[in-house]
Amino acid sequence: MSSTRPIRERNPATTAVVGVLGGGQLGRMLALAGHPLGVELVCVDPSADAPAAAVARHVTRDYADPEALAALASCAVVTYEFESVPVSAAEALAEKTRVSPPPEALRVAQDRLLEKQCFRALGIPTPDFAAVGSRAELEAGCEALGFPAVLKTRRLGYDGKGQRVLRSRKELDDAWTALGGVPCILERFVPFERELSLLVVRGQDGSTVHYPLVENEHEGGILRVTRAPAPGLTPSLQARAAEYGSRLCARLAYVGVLALELFEAGGELLANEMAPRVHNSGHFTIEGARTSQFENHLRAILGLPLGSPEVPEPCAMLNCVGALPDPHAVLSVPGAHLHLYGKAPRAGRKVGHITVTGEQALAERLERLRALPGVG
Amino acid sequence: MSSTRPIRERNPATTAVVGVLGGGQLGRMLALAGHPLGVELVCVDPSADAPAAAVARHVTRDYADPEALAALASCAVVTYEFESVPVSAAEALAEKTRVSPPPEALRVAQDRLLEKQCFRALGIPTPDFAAVGSRAELEAGCEALGFPAVLKTRRLGYDGKGQRVLRSRKELDDAWTALGGVPCILERFVPFERELSLLVVRGQDGSTVHYPLVENEHEGGILRVTRAPAPGLTPSLQARAAEYGSRLCARLAYVGVLALELFEAGGELLANEMAPRVHNSGHFTIEGARTSQFENHLRAILGLPLGSPEVPEPCAMLNCVGALPDPHAVLSVPGAHLHLYGKAPRAGRKVGHITVTGEQALAERLERLRALPGVG
Repeated sequence: MSSTRPIRERNPATTAVVGVLGGGQLGRMLALAGHPLGVELVCVDPSADAPAAAVARHVTRDYADPEALAALASCAVVTYEFESVPVSAAEALAEKTRVSPPPEALRVAQDRLLEKQCFRALGIPTPDFAAVGSRAELEAGCEALGFPAVLKTRRLGYDGKGQRVLRSRKELDDAWTALGGVPCILERFVPFERELSLLVVRGQDGSTVHYPLVENEHEGGILRVTRAPAPGLTPSLQARAAEYGSRLCARLAYVGVLALELFEAGGELLANEMAPRVHNSGHFTIEGARTSQFENHLRAILGLPLGSPEVPEPCAMLNCVGALPDPHAVLSVPGAHLHLYGKAPRAGRKVGHITVTGEQALAERLERLRALPGVG
Repeated sequence: MSSTRPIRERNPATTAVVGVLGGGQLGRMLALAGHPLGVELVCVDPSADAPAAAVARHVTRDYADPEALAALASCAVVTYEFESVPVSAAEALAEKTRVSPPPEALRVAQDRLLEKQCFRALGIPTPDFAAVGSRAELEAGCEALGFPAVLKTRRLGYDGKGQRVLRSRKELDDAWTALGGVPCILERFVPFERELSLLVVRGQDGSTVHYPLVENEHEGGILRVTRAPAPGLTPSLQARAAEYGSRLCARLAYVGVLALELFEAGGELLANEMAPRVHNSGHFTIEGARTSQFENHLRAILGLPLGSPEVPEPCAMLNCVGALPDPHAVLSVPGAHLHLYGKAPRAGRKVGHITVTGEQALAERLERLRALPGVG
């Protein structure tokens, strides 16, 4: 019995081989979107049980490993599916093959200060912020911005990690120590009404499409539910967000899917952060949009025409966190589609998601799903 | 660099391992639908470059090979993705594990005479027919049915192969010889207006859903274009077809997707043949229906609730035959989605398909796609 499954680079039916830094669930869903296009993925991920490995070639090496980089350098194009890959690795690859999105986008997205400065330079509103390189600068920043404020490490923060809310001077010492005294950014706390996100896709020829703004609901710093389009979305709000997304893409010579997280506060849109990759808040697009973010990312980086981002009817996405949902219970809800990532459950770990559609019935279906253990 | 991609049967995130007799494009699309459900496929296919191998475990053995059968027997359920697998292999497997659809459906579908007799016994209209086991019976059959008539081998016919149209007595000798003197069925030639097909899905609990009837257009015996729903489809026509599909499923204790091909002639629906598996005329369901036939087949055979077969708006599917289409040209048509099967092109070989949606614009988009080499 043979269990080898060779990647057939020489198969004339293969459109392209795409290299990916990372092999998590985003890589897995990129790979699932790639096969119908004749696109095979090679994912570099040091984890032996990377979720993408079931559907893509898996190079079980560190992101900066020379052999891994050699494997990627032979691909038509290299992309990333999480943003903590070393910029140096992406830059080295860019000398050998096409790398999309460009390493510059990775560099900016990895640093909350560079990111906010980039937003500001483009006229994209953000919460007020100050650079904090020392305990003294933290003091000065709080003086300037007032309380409450949020202290965030410039690098390596995700899912609410690496940040502290400061409500008074008394909390500065603890927060500074807890975050390890590393370079930080201090931001004015924005009492926002909701968090929205925008997915932009930009092709090699500069053509750009925008998915409708979606509304994200977090709990414990982890995304739980996305509603698409964002309830009550107006054309003017969408146009404003799309303009911000387009400016960012143009500034970064961006190619691929870019996610921009925004706060809606008092009629204003404030940019919080960006992700230079497909994004959890775009998972709904698999069933909910004309073209999924995964297919559009591949189309973009391969120089193919982009697909329509239209969302024909309201839908929602619920993350499965910490526990595997019961497939029978999930699929007994009309309009529900289950996406498991092949990951063993652990507290706080995203192991899958559910998309649910249904126009009038959406709210009721959403509540049925949220009542299930580990869902939403 | 590791290129092994182990199937993780023991991964707690795996819902089930499904065995499949066959590893062609249908197996490939089943596998792509399976991963999000946590379902891994093991496909048995003697061909080294089976299309499913890129996304499923591939056992490169003959369908009746003991080791292959042992591998399948350890699966939660076994299914087929083409119907020429030996019934004996399916029956042997059914003694060890669940086999869906039941081997009896395979037995009936493999024999055009049993199939037509089954339709007739259930009150499902068919073209008039006669069994032909000898040259003399051919003579008698033509006497009874008149000309034109169609002589078909009882077994192993597909894509227009294994059949001859008879227009007069003079053609009997040639046709009988050309088909090899094997057991045949003779059918009255029906000047049908169009060919329709119905996809039915029946769950383990007997619950049944029907996709809307679709219209199929053939050329050279090969399906070229499917329009879904069939233009001008009326509720009464749909209800009649659904009733036939339900009767068949109930009679065969069917579980899974069943395709029923029908002729529409003078307001009548005549059953032509059935396929106990996902079907080419159902490929449009990946983008065109609420739930794809591939996902619904897996849901059915795993005892999960069935998904909605609703088709929210008109769409069409075009086969790519004999040549790989240019992805750029295909995807520049709005609403078009490309599905390649990882097969090298050969004359008459189905190497992919395209789904296109678009309500008002559908006809124009369809024509743009049909103008491409190898499409439709």
